[in-house]
Amino acid sequence: MTDSPDQPRYDVIAIGNAIVDVMAPCEDALIEDLGLAKGGMTLIDTARAEELYAAMGPAKEISGGSAANTLAGMAALGARCAFIGQVADDQLGAVFSHDIRAVGVDFDTPKRKAEPPTARCLIFVTPDGERTMNTFLGASQFLPPAALDEALIASAGILYLEGYLWDPEEPRSAMRRAIEVARETGRKVAFTASESFVIDRHGEDFRALIADGLIDILFVNETELASLTGETNFDAGLDALKDSVPVLVATRSAKGAVAIASGERAEVPAEPVAKVVDTTGAGDLFAAGFLTGHAREESLERCLKMGAICAAEVISHYGARPEADLQALVVGA
Amino acid sequence: MTDSPDQPRYDVIAIGNAIVDVMAPCEDALIEDLGLAKGGMTLIDTARAEELYAAMGPAKEISGGSAANTLAGMAALGARCAFIGQVADDQLGAVFSHDIRAVGVDFDTPKRKAEPPTARCLIFVTPDGERTMNTFLGASQFLPPAALDEALIASAGILYLEGYLWDPEEPRSAMRRAIEVARETGRKVAFTASESFVIDRHGEDFRALIADGLIDILFVNETELASLTGETNFDAGLDALKDSVPVLVATRSAKGAVAIASGERAEVPAEPVAKVVDTTGAGDLFAAGFLTGHAREESLERCLKMGAICAAEVISHYGARPEADLQALVVGA
Repeated sequence: MTDSPDQPRYDVIAIGNAIVDVMAPCEDALIEDLGLAKGGMTLIDTARAEELYAAMGPAKEISGGSAANTLAGMAALGARCAFIGQVADDQLGAVFSHDIRAVGVDFDTPKRKAEPPTARCLIFVTPDGERTMNTFLGASQFLPPAALDEALIASAGILYLEGYLWDPEEPRSAMRRAIEVARETGRKVAFTASESFVIDRHGEDFRALIADGLIDILFVNETELASLTGETNFDAGLDALKDSVPVLVATRSAKGAVAIASGERAEVPAEPVAKVVDTTGAGDLFAAGFLTGHAREESLERCLKMGAICAAEVISHYGARPEADLQALVVGA
Repeated sequence: MTDSPDQPRYDVIAIGNAIVDVMAPCEDALIEDLGLAKGGMTLIDTARAEELYAAMGPAKEISGGSAANTLAGMAALGARCAFIGQVADDQLGAVFSHDIRAVGVDFDTPKRKAEPPTARCLIFVTPDGERTMNTFLGASQFLPPAALDEALIASAGILYLEGYLWDPEEPRSAMRRAIEVARETGRKVAFTASESFVIDRHGEDFRALIADGLIDILFVNETELASLTGETNFDAGLDALKDSVPVLVATRSAKGAVAIASGERAEVPAEPVAKVVDTTGAGDLFAAGFLTGHAREESLERCLKMGAICAAEVISHYGARPEADLQALVVGA
């Protein structure tokens, strides 16, 4: 990051899954009956999607997708954002496109005019607020490198990548190319590990990206940190990464979050929440607050605080997109 | 209703619009800018639907449809219900079908394999909780008389008809035939006027149905009562109808509701609500409580009370389908 590029047009451009969440409350017994991994994210095929949907209670459709949720939060905070992701030319694709544009995020990836349909995530929310996600990737996994608008990537201060999308082959190639473009044009690369299963499958790739100095900002939770470093002790995990990642951010659910940057360590507790209704999007909105603070060159502690405020808002209601005025919440805190 | 038919298989079968609601909060200024009739329901075409959707903030998709909402409430109260309505063979049709079946309502009307798509209602919810509805009827208006399962209609104690669906021609014919079947088999016919614009267009039809003794239970609100009778005074309106409708139910929003049956008059206040979040579905859920009480041969006052409790639940959150355990709410009151 020794270049001094022109003033970027966007604060952040993200590449992620373009998904509509299908959310319903359920009892813990149903999670067990269906053989779901409570709290996790599982990829499912068409047959399993039909089986799970049939077992699900009445649901709501709310746009989601990890990086897209982060952008929705950043846009709500006033950041200038653009999104790259693949929807199909169908009704859920129209829903996803409408919702992300309606919050002020630019989104122009051409729709894919073929099967499979737009991605959806069947989310069962238990009475404790925990979400169990079952993702049918659909069109999302076919994001081609050709869909990258390289000028757009060059025009954003930060390129933000969603680990989930590292799993399917085409988007992985697209993200590798996007990283090259960001490096060539002197932009920062931020990456969220997304889920430990992604690290189980692609840990070597991620460790290589880190070792090659290609990741400027890394978001992990405790489990992902352990998977990535092989260290079961949280602090040992941080120590293993802190010298190879310029900005390392580790979230710990109710225990708050830690960040280490250029030798400085900051920590915040979780923000209080009257009732945890639905944890879907907690990590995504944490990243939204942190990245917005980072783009504004706020202090490390302030970036964490902004992340914690945004995460607290999103877990206090159903759905992974913010509902309250995040700007007001952040300014007032 | 002098016959004594066999024990019905269903408490109620309803014919109504099969609609997915697309709901978003908005400020009052947007209602004005878009030239919407606040608090009303307007039918829109494809071009207007696209225009309004583009102007709408990030939305949630939640199954709706007036009579379908009523059945969702009745099923939640333990009533046995079936629905007849037309969806297209598309994603929103699958959403509607899933959600109504997931609450335990039987729904087997074949999907329509042609344009237009499944109906949707763009609902703008202002900070006062008032909803402004813009309905794209899509497939819903093409419910053909052939889609009626006459044995199903004969197997339900009450046939419930949604006035909204009287407007398009094909469903109107279907409903006329359904009324015949219900009369031939000694079942009751319940009817909701739905909206004063429907009465403006089809008031003569409705007055004829009433005069012919074809409506056993009629739901109206104050405005609809005035449109139907020409009486601007509420009590004068009731007087004009009470002798030709065996069970007349008039809702008055925050002022509660009145019912008159066989010369008996009962009245209840509105149930208290901590905060009116979204009035969508208030009338539908009132009908759910009332009809369930009626099917159980509860007292007229108890039927009204059950209606008021269900209406209060649905206006305390987003969306026109119940979220709390209605059975528990009703039993406890």
